[in-house]
Amino acid sequence: MRISTLRLPDRTVAARQDGETYTEIDGFADVGTLLQDPSWQRVAAEAAGTTHAVDGADLAPLVPRPGKIVCVGQNYRRHILEMGSQLPEHPTLFAKYADSLIGAHDDIELPPEDAWIDWEAELAIVIGRPGRRIAESDALEHVAGYTVLNDISMRGYQFRTPQWLQGKTWENSTPVGPALVTPEELDGDAAIRTVVDGETMQESTVADLVFGPAAIISYVSTIVTLRPGDVIATGTPDGVGFARDPKRFLQDGNVIETSIDGLGTLRNRVVATS
Amino acid sequence: MRISTLRLPDRTVAARQDGETYTEIDGFADVGTLLQDPSWQRVAAEAAGTTHAVDGADLAPLVPRPGKIVCVGQNYRRHILEMGSQLPEHPTLFAKYADSLIGAHDDIELPPEDAWIDWEAELAIVIGRPGRRIAESDALEHVAGYTVLNDISMRGYQFRTPQWLQGKTWENSTPVGPALVTPEELDGDAAIRTVVDGETMQESTVADLVFGPAAIISYVSTIVTLRPGDVIATGTPDGVGFARDPKRFLQDGNVIETSIDGLGTLRNRVVATS
Repeated sequence: MRISTLRLPDRTVAARQDGETYTEIDGFADVGTLLQDPSWQRVAAEAAGTTHAVDGADLAPLVPRPGKIVCVGQNYRRHILEMGSQLPEHPTLFAKYADSLIGAHDDIELPPEDAWIDWEAELAIVIGRPGRRIAESDALEHVAGYTVLNDISMRGYQFRTPQWLQGKTWENSTPVGPALVTPEELDGDAAIRTVVDGETMQESTVADLVFGPAAIISYVSTIVTLRPGDVIATGTPDGVGFARDPKRFLQDGNVIETSIDGLGTLRNRVVATS
Repeated sequence: MRISTLRLPDRTVAARQDGETYTEIDGFADVGTLLQDPSWQRVAAEAAGTTHAVDGADLAPLVPRPGKIVCVGQNYRRHILEMGSQLPEHPTLFAKYADSLIGAHDDIELPPEDAWIDWEAELAIVIGRPGRRIAESDALEHVAGYTVLNDISMRGYQFRTPQWLQGKTWENSTPVGPALVTPEELDGDAAIRTVVDGETMQESTVADLVFGPAAIISYVSTIVTLRPGDVIATGTPDGVGFARDPKRFLQDGNVIETSIDGLGTLRNRVVATS
């Protein structure tokens, strides 16, 4: 099952996708709100609201206001090596604020304060069932589904201090979507890609993750309760612009496509703001 | 004016404090909700709801679900020196999730996973008016008030990786309160203290901040819109347990008091969880 958050002229609404049609899930303004209902799977499967064409639909951030956005760094074997680091013993965690999220086709705001704007294609987990100190063997039962996120990173600010947050949470910079896809639709070795103006920049497989979804959920939930609608971005593969020689960064007018096979594609224009 | 969030048997409510009495501000479940109303100052000043004695009142986290909790690290001159660092050119920023917040008199949960639990008394800013790219000269107009926060830190997890988040956001670890105090009541050189079982561990003045509230607000709002109810913890002075010789950490049964003159005192028992 695939569920998106549609942006309509006067509101947003969660909607089930069947082929080329979205069907509104009445009473739920977005996927985050839907997941607060423990019977969300039945509610979504049985929804029979107003329909919309998928083609041309306007998508809001999949979960507009997650209680938490947890990001994992240094989590693809080849990306760790390209950044000059060693394979980690523990996951590296940092945060992002909800204000950074945009929809699957929204413009990415390029701020004038940083010229080093980079891509980071990521598999994101959306939590469906709450839990604390979740055993790794039980962890996948807490997953509502998966989606695509690009952890667009302002490298100048990211590396101003040793803490990355200030490069990771710029307003309207992080596309997430296009859909919550329930776990049975994700292959364990699905391809993950970033393409900028037709040029493939990142291409890997989620099988290259050092800490997979179950390990991450168990680890994060040791620290803090995971709740429905929480989003965990699991890290990015090799091929980021900062690690290239010469370095490559996003420019005004670029179109960046971020995709994971089986989950879908984010397609965002990069637009300079003043 | 002083405003707190009271925890009553069946609900929470924002309340104005006048001497030894709290007066409920009808219709507002907490200070975060109150600050969404642009006329919150008038609403709070004119409130005439049910009253409660201050003595013995149960306080919820001042803002239970801030849209953002932004923490500043390395921001007191003497603490920077004790941690062996140099005075910074830019503020160091990291995040904390709302799940970590507790009330001014709630127990601090000591998790079994980390034995190095440390204190960090902090002046916290609560935002009252939204803004992006706020000039430093305008920044204080965006402050609703100030409060006290102890950024209790699990040093084992904090230093497992270079990103501090996982040591900074343990469930039910971060007391915040007891009140939102409007700016005119805070002296620029107010004393800030941590006392553990009667022993003074930190004692400094907010005048030792490297980046003061106006500079921090301007900096953070360059990156992301600040919104009413957002909380910014401005960093801790010298005297943390990790930097002592020998190191000192919190133990089951300790009582920790965190205070800033003019703002009030957090008094929390430390309780081991299993």
